[in-house]
This record gives sequence, C-alpha cells and structure tokens, in this order.
Amino acid sequence: MSAQYRKLHDHFKRISHFEHFNNLGEWDLCTMMPDGGSEGRSEAMATLSSHIHEMRTEDWLSDSIQQAMQESLPAAQQANLVEMQRQVSQASLVPAKLVAAKTKAAFACEHAWREQRKNNDWQGFAPNLTGVIELAREEAQIRAEALGITPYDALLEKFEPGMTTDKLEQLFAPLRSELPGLIQQVVDKQAGEPNTSLTGKFDTAAQEVLSRKVMALLDFDFNQGRLDVSSHPFSCGVPGDIRITTRFDEDDFSSSLMSTIHETGHARYEQGLPTDWQGQPAGMARSMGMHESQSLFYEMQLARSEGFLGLIRNDINQAFGNDYSLEQLKHSFTRVNRGLIRVDADEVTYPCHILLRFDAEKALIDGSLAVKDLPEFWNANMQQLLGLSTQGNDKDGCMQDIHWTLGELGYFPSYTLGAMTAAQIRYAMEKQLGSLDKLMSNGRIKEIFNWLSANIWCKGSLMSTDELMTSATGEVLKGEYLLTHLKQRYLG
Amino acid sequence: MSAQYRKLHDHFKRISHFEHFNNLGEWDLCTMMPDGGSEGRSEAMATLSSHIHEMRTEDWLSDSIQQAMQESLPAAQQANLVEMQRQVSQASLVPAKLVAAKTKAAFACEHAWREQRKNNDWQGFAPNLTGVIELAREEAQIRAEALGITPYDALLEKFEPGMTTDKLEQLFAPLRSELPGLIQQVVDKQAGEPNTSLTGKFDTAAQEVLSRKVMALLDFDFNQGRLDVSSHPFSCGVPGDIRITTRFDEDDFSSSLMSTIHETGHARYEQGLPTDWQGQPAGMARSMGMHESQSLFYEMQLARSEGFLGLIRNDINQAFGNDYSLEQLKHSFTRVNRGLIRVDADEVTYPCHILLRFDAEKALIDGSLAVKDLPEFWNANMQQLLGLSTQGNDKDGCMQDIHWTLGELGYFPSYTLGAMTAAQIRYAMEKQLGSLDKLMSNGRIKEIFNWLSANIWCKGSLMSTDELMTSATGEVLKGEYLLTHLKQRYLG
Ligand SMILES: [Zn+2]
Ligand SMILES: [Zn+2]
Repeated sequence: MSAQYRKLHDHFKRISHFEHFNNLGEWDLCTMMPDGGSEGRSEAMATLSSHIHEMRTEDWLSDSIQQAMQESLPAAQQANLVEMQRQVSQASLVPAKLVAAKTKAAFACEHAWREQRKNNDWQGFAPNLTGVIELAREEAQIRAEALGITPYDALLEKFEPGMTTDKLEQLFAPLRSELPGLIQQVVDKQAGEPNTSLTGKFDTAAQEVLSRKVMALLDFDFNQGRLDVSSHPFSCGVPGDIRITTRFDEDDFSSSLMSTIHETGHARYEQGLPTDWQGQPAGMARSMGMHESQSLFYEMQLARSEGFLGLIRNDINQAFGNDYSLEQLKHSFTRVNRGLIRVDADEVTYPCHILLRFDAEKALIDGSLAVKDLPEFWNANMQQLLGLSTQGNDKDGCMQDIHWTLGELGYFPSYTLGAMTAAQIRYAMEKQLGSLDKLMSNGRIKEIFNWLSANIWCKGSLMSTDELMTSATGEVLKGEYLLTHLKQRYLG
Repeated sequence: MSAQYRKLHDHFKRISHFEHFNNLGEWDLCTMMPDGGSEGRSEAMATLSSHIHEMRTEDWLSDSIQQAMQESLPAAQQANLVEMQRQVSQASLVPAKLVAAKTKAAFACEHAWREQRKNNDWQGFAPNLTGVIELAREEAQIRAEALGITPYDALLEKFEPGMTTDKLEQLFAPLRSELPGLIQQVVDKQAGEPNTSLTGKFDTAAQEVLSRKVMALLDFDFNQGRLDVSSHPFSCGVPGDIRITTRFDEDDFSSSLMSTIHETGHARYEQGLPTDWQGQPAGMARSMGMHESQSLFYEMQLARSEGFLGLIRNDINQAFGNDYSLEQLKHSFTRVNRGLIRVDADEVTYPCHILLRFDAEKALIDGSLAVKDLPEFWNANMQQLLGLSTQGNDKDGCMQDIHWTLGELGYFPSYTLGAMTAAQIRYAMEKQLGSLDKLMSNGRIKEIFNWLSANIWCKGSLMSTDELMTSATGEVLKGEYLLTHLKQRYLG
C-alpha cells in the first residue's frame, strides 16, 4: 500500500466506524427504543451524520484521491479510489443549507402525510409535497450542473451509478409494450383455477419459528445476524452482524414469510460482501438495484418456485397444523391481481407501478408535470397500465408511497432494475447449474448461494454494474429476461 | 448565555451525542449483538472512544473554560464549568500511549483470567496481574503529580471527586472496629431462627413478569427505558431512554429480583437527572458512590424492609404459586452469612469485603504490597475480618473480582460509600416523612421517590458531593448511619 493510498484507506475505515453507529442507531430506533428516547436519539443522529458528512468532505480528500489515482496501484485499489471519489463528490455536491432545508421540509411533509393519507386529504398534502419537490428539483439541478448530466439522471446516479434515463427507457420499453397484454393473459388463465388463498388464524410465535427455519434453509447465519420485529420490514447492519426485521400478521402468514425471505436476500448479500474490503467504499453493495436483485432473487426467483415451496411445505404445515398441498402453495404464492397498491403487488403487475412512478418523477423534475396535476396524471396512467381508476382515491393513488414525501426521487426504478437483474441472474445460473427446481429438490440449494457468493456478493463494488453483470451473466443487463421469466412461470 | 459559555456548552453537548452511541454500542453488545459482530464493534468503539477523547482534549478548551470562569455567570453555569474542567483534565492527564498499553494489558489479563480463575491458577494469573498493576501504578503517579495529591487519592478522584484516603479511613474506622463483633451477634441471633430459604423451581417467564411489576411499583417508566437480559446485570442509557438488564436463575428468584431492584435504583437516578442540563457535565450523576447509594437505597433500604416486602408479597406468591408469609420473606431477604464472595454478600458482611480490597489497593499502589504476596495478604485479612480462610483457594480469594484485571483500582470504596450514603439518606428522609415502612404500607411509596428526586436526582452535578449531602440530609457524609441501620435491622 502506498502512503497516499494508506492514508485514504484509513480515513474511509474511520468513516465506516461512525457509519457503524449510524446503522445501529437506526436499527435500535425501529426495534428496541422506547418512545422517550426519540428526542435524544434524533439529536445524536444529527450530530453523527454531520460528522460523517464532514469526514467525507474534508479539503484534502479530492486532491489526495487524484494523486493516488496517478500511482500505479493494483486494480482493486484503483477501483476503491473510484468509489472513494464517488462518495466524496456525492457528499460535496449539495450545499449543507439545501440539505438542511430539504430534511426539514421532508420531515414536516412526511409527518403530516401520515394523517393526510388516511384521510385522503390531497388538498392538505399538495402544498407540502410541492415544497419538497421544489427542493428536490433544486438538488437535482445542482447535481446535474456539477456532473454535466440531466437533472433526473443526476438523481438516478445517487442510487445507480452510471444509470441514465435513456438506458432505463430502453430497458423498460419491452415491459411497457408487453406487460398490459401479458397481465390480461395471466388473469384470464388464473380465473379458471380454484381459489387457493391461505386463510385462517396463524399464531405469531409459530410464524416466528417458521421464519427462522426458512432463514436457516436460506443459509442466513444467526451467528452473524438477527431477526427482530418492526412496523416496516428492513435489513441493515455491518459486516459480521447483519440484522433483518419482519412483522407478523395473525390473518396472513404468507406475506410475512415472503417479506422475511426478501430481507434475507438483502442480508445474505451484505453477509457475503468481500471481507478483505470491509469498511472500504469498494467493499460495499454495488447499487440499490443490485441490492434489490438479491432480495427479489430470494423472494421471487427462489421462494415462489416449485422446488423451494416443496422444501418448506412441511415446515409450513407443521407450524400451523395445516395440510396445504404443494399445488395449493404454488397457486397461492403466484396469484396475480391488478391492484392499486405497489407494496401489495405481485411480480407480474409490479413493474406497472414502477413505470408510472418513473414517468411521473421525470416529469416532476423537468417541470412538465406540476404537483397539482399529479392525481389526474396518476389516474390516467393507472387506467392505461392496469385498467384501474384512482379518481377521488388519492390515498390509494399518488399519496400511497413515503418516498416522495421524503424528497427521495430517482429511487423507484431500482425496484424493477432489481427484478430484471434477478431474472437475468437466474437464467445465467441455470446455464451453469441446470434447473434450480431440480437442484433444490435434490438437496443442493447451497450451490445456488455459492454461485451468488462467488459471482455477485464477493465482488462488492470492485467493478462497475455493467462489468459485474457481464462477469456474472455474460452480458450487461437486458430487459427481456424478466419478461421471459414471467411468461414461463405464469403462462408456461 | 455568554458567547464563551455558549461555545463550551455546545461542544459538550456534541460530546454527549457521541457518548450516546458509546452507550448504545455497549448495551447492544451485552444484550443483542451476535458473536459475529464482536470484531467490528470493538473496532468501531475504539474509533468512537478516541474521537470522544480528542474532543475532550482539544487545545482551546482549558483556556476557554478559564476565561468563562472569569465572567459573572449564574451559579449553575459556574458549576457546569467546574465539571467541564474536571472532564478536560481527567481526559488530558494520562498520555494516550499509556492508556493504550493499559487497555491492551487489561484485555489480555481479563481474557486469560476467565479460565485461570476457574482453574484456581494463581501462578498463571500473577504475572499478568503484575503487568496491569504496574501500569495502574504508573497512571496513578502521573495523575498524582498533575493534581498534587497522592497516587491512590488520584485514583479515587476518578470515581469520587474530592474523596481522599484520609477521609475514607475516617469514614471506615467505625466499620473496622465494630463490624466483626456486630456480624457475630447477628449470626448468633439468626442461628436461633427457622431456616427460611426460598427454594424451588421458579419459571423464568414468571420471574420476568414479577420483575416488571416490581419495577413499575418502583415507578420505573417503561416509556423511558427497557428491561433486558444479559449475563451480568447493569444499567445504562441516555436521558429519556434508560435501560437495565437482569438475569434469571430457575433455582433462585430472589437474587434476580434483588438485582433488578438494584439496577432500577441506578436507572431512576439517571431518569431523574435534571432535564435542563441534559448532555452537560453538570447534568450527570454526582459520583459512583452517589450512584451506588441510589441502587443500594432501593435494594437494601427499601426492598428488604417489611413495608416493601408487604407490598410485593402477593405478586411473588402469584408469580410462582407459593404462599410465603411476610415473616418468611423478611427472614430470607435479611439472612446474614459470612462468605468468601463479595458479590454474594449480604449488606452486613459486605463492607468487610470492601475494607480488605481498600487496604490491598492502597498497598499495591504505594508499592508496600507486591502482587506475589497478595494471596497471603488476602487470607490474613479474611481471617481477621470474617474468620474465613482462602489458603490455596485463590479463585474465591484474590482472583474473584474483575476490577483489578481491568486495571481499575480505586473503585471498590464507592460500594461502601454508597451503602453509607443510602443509610444517611434514609434517616434524613424519615425525619421529614416519618417511617418509610408506614409510608409504604399506607400506599404512599411515591413520596419516597419524590423526596429522592427533589433532593438528589435533580441536582445532578450542580453541587459537590459534600454540598449535595448537606442540602439533602443536613450534614456531610458520616460513617455511623450505616452501622445504626444495620444494628436496627439485624439486632433490633
Ligand atoms: Zn428490498
Ligand atoms: Zn450498582
């Protein structure tokens, strides 16, 4: 290690130590902290965040990174420098004053939204959202000028390094044209099948036991992580200690189970990141889309497959004293319904929710869509994509998500990028390992994890997304694998 | 607030935000963290600690505090400046190199001790302990020179600002002379009483329910704190979020219950610290002895009294389906036994364990006792104080405590200072409120907490220990109240 590189290496290691506590503070807040701790925690988190921000924007960093880049360092160190530079410039781009204004507006908007959404109060919500969107637009413009790209691309860059609107349009084009017809076909096909919903009362303690069993089957290492309960499931943690949460619903074990499996996918990616690069920017997950690809690989590609459901059928029946057949489980876990709510959507209709939001975000950022016209825009697009109306029902329309209330625009595409990536990974994996269903029914599920570990997880951010996809699957991300998968599973 | 004072105020507030995470990291480590998290946590804690240390030793601080002290500030702000100065000089006294050497030696010593103690391996332990004690002596000398006091007094100063060996000798003198005889009298008296031990199997879930009930009776605010399980009970936390831990033993509910009550006392002190001074040095607990006085007030003065046991008898019987009489509970919770182990000792014999350690520490620090002679010293003093031998049984003698393995000398006296303080507080309180037993049986237990809150907790470190004791009890700490209490309870 050169002296120049060593100094940077140690600085980013120190940053990761403070991030460690940021992470712990968030987890504790959502799982353990009594109400009385809110004020103290939020003050302490603010000081910690601003300390981390200061460390990422220290004067000497950019020059030092540039100088280190001139040295003839090993490729992996070069990659680490690129990621350091990304962190530094991302942190330096937006003036602290704007960050503070946005945080304040977002906090107020989100807080009011919790009631306004319940009351379908668009008139009350619109002015708050307008304020937040204006600040997000300002942020996008500042980022765009600094990076020499368009404002919306500058937002995408936060979550998906290298991604652009044009690339997304290309990737999403087949979905736009084919999905509405495909959904109709699937719905028609499933209309002829028996009703298979898994109704009943499901003891939450039994659900927890089942969750832990399934996590163990998915090779989650409880010596390096935890499962807890929170009102919204999430995963977080630090190397060696990755924690996920779930929630249990007495009336519906299946959504909790699938959400646990989803978070387990996120967690295993984190548990599998390269240990040699712990605490370094190159040792982190590649992008939000890549992260989502791992959770969706677990939840969609694996968990709803016949092979996997065959593995957990006994555990499910044992947990609740039922006798579901494999056929029943398969039907239930692959049921397709057009609905208004994104987070409740199945994998076939889900991309429609994203297409709508992607189009809305672009237009909100370039100014061609005003917040006041959002309900109409939403209704028109829902009609077109899913044949559903949100007229007068904004709480289940443009008011349903938390993202925009927080000023987080540019994130939604990552969900569908994740689904596409997961599908492409599955086909590449099957070329090498053969049918995953067969692998699983032959007790060789670990080979799947080994493949992910060797081809995705252990690469961290040591290569770009395109390089990672090419090295793992033989080609850069392509939109068609998701459609192929959907047709195969739902029409095959 | 003057500008000078404001700057200091904000700096110490920021320090408290980082301490917040130090605290959370420790709690999580003892209660929640999976094994895999150890390495990452200890690295992150080390970075955080050194950051806090840097903040406490920034160049400008001492001058700035001195200048602020020249301003005509309100008395409370002056008190805060005094506490700031104490923190700054305590942090600056010891060179970082010595701190690091001591941490390393302590870690190795304590780690090996866990096995060595089990194996009664004094020969293996002695060289490690010698290394740690040498570094502790070096630390004491450096502190002593800087403060112009003796080395052992300089160690006391860390835990008990203003306390000296001479004062301790005076306070402890009556115990030294009277306790051995008193213990004999109590043991003789109790020999004639029926055996009252509360034996059986006690469901741990029922123990937890009981713990929470008793904590609620003690006015612990679960909206501002938690109860969890850890291998060694402790209390910690930040304003608004004070957490205690306990452990449950199927064969013995009473020690777990008493330890929960003890930690509840610590917690209520923390919950009661002055809210206006949160995050400021003057807003913290006065000293370790004062902290221990609150836990011992709860555990000894309150919880083993007839009034309190009367309040919880039904809960105990309900929890385990027993039918203990009040007499039985009282006998059992005030049983006196001479034993070798400090942490298992009752309140009558406990001070003997402290006297022995106090004498040993002084001699280890002034060099008149060598580590190699410690077993002999221990045996001789145990013979004299409690009539017990530790010959050839070092694991239950000089190897039983963790404190010295960690290089922590000067702490032991705080336990008995706490017991003395608790007794003195009780007599002062009874002068104003009448018999506590009567208060409790009349459903007026809250008046006890109100008294503590108004006279102790809400004072934080706004006055010195002597001032605090005088304002609360009418006089500085006196040794005799503890003896009076013991005689009254055990011979009365
Ligand atoms: Zn996810
Ligand atoms: Zn204590």
